[in-house]
Amino acid sequence: MSSIVHRIGIHAPASSAYRALSTIEGLAGWWTRDTTGTASVGECINFKFRDPAGKEIGGFEMEVLEQSPDDKVRWKVRSGPAEWIGTQISFSLAEQDGMTLVLFAHREWREEVEFMAHCSMKWAVFLLSLRDLVERGAGQPAPDDVKIDNWN
Amino acid sequence: MSSIVHRIGIHAPASSAYRALSTIEGLAGWWTRDTTGTASVGECINFKFRDPAGKEIGGFEMEVLEQSPDDKVRWKVRSGPAEWIGTQISFSLAEQDGMTLVLFAHREWREEVEFMAHCSMKWAVFLLSLRDLVERGAGQPAPDDVKIDNWN
Repeated sequence: MSSIVHRIGIHAPASSAYRALSTIEGLAGWWTRDTTGTASVGECINFKFRDPAGKEIGGFEMEVLEQSPDDKVRWKVRSGPAEWIGTQISFSLAEQDGMTLVLFAHREWREEVEFMAHCSMKWAVFLLSLRDLVERGAGQPAPDDVKIDNWN
Repeated sequence: MSSIVHRIGIHAPASSAYRALSTIEGLAGWWTRDTTGTASVGECINFKFRDPAGKEIGGFEMEVLEQSPDDKVRWKVRSGPAEWIGTQISFSLAEQDGMTLVLFAHREWREEVEFMAHCSMKWAVFLLSLRDLVERGAGQPAPDDVKIDNWN
């Protein structure tokens, strides 16, 4: 099993970072604008990605496994690209040195495929978007996200 | 053993990306301005990092294991933080869809420590700097790099 892990510090209270990770409105502000569903344990959140013309180019359905206020959010991927199904994504928060540290993990990849390298880079770009949203009030969610390669 | 892997596309020929990865001047343009040594197989390159006041805050010595023009660069870490010693770093290039894809890997981490998550995020930021250098002529090497958390 392989994992993607990232660490980023946000100059804001953990409660602000948690809101961006645990509400539909928050998630739509940094990952993809087309975020729907219910952000509660046992429920599912749907993330869809569209090209500039509005055509759907991909998406994920996540089951919320854990939402601990100001502390942790954890999802399991229910549908999406084959490589993602069954993988788990988590965000752990800790206030330190005047910032909130976000420890991100996307675990249980069956193989370290090239698509995983793409996703690792893309997650980094979206975590910068999360930081911009929480610190400045505006992120760069899809479809206005930073493109990184020929896969988007 | 754990790995960091990233994938980024650069709108430029592989030869331009290779130059930024295989020469002291190129490396100083996107990773750290304080890059010295000899970028040849069997030789070592020294990367030092300084704070804005010029004080050294860290560094790495890499032995060059491989330099295949327009194709691959591979290093082994000889000195630096304990977690990095003995790890290997590689950049594999491939032209595709009008861009050069860089497949980055930092392998042989003994444990998936929190510092690895920091380094994964930091490598992503430096790969964006590499892209800026190759595409636009200017990257954001240390000490002018994008800071990501309380560890820099």
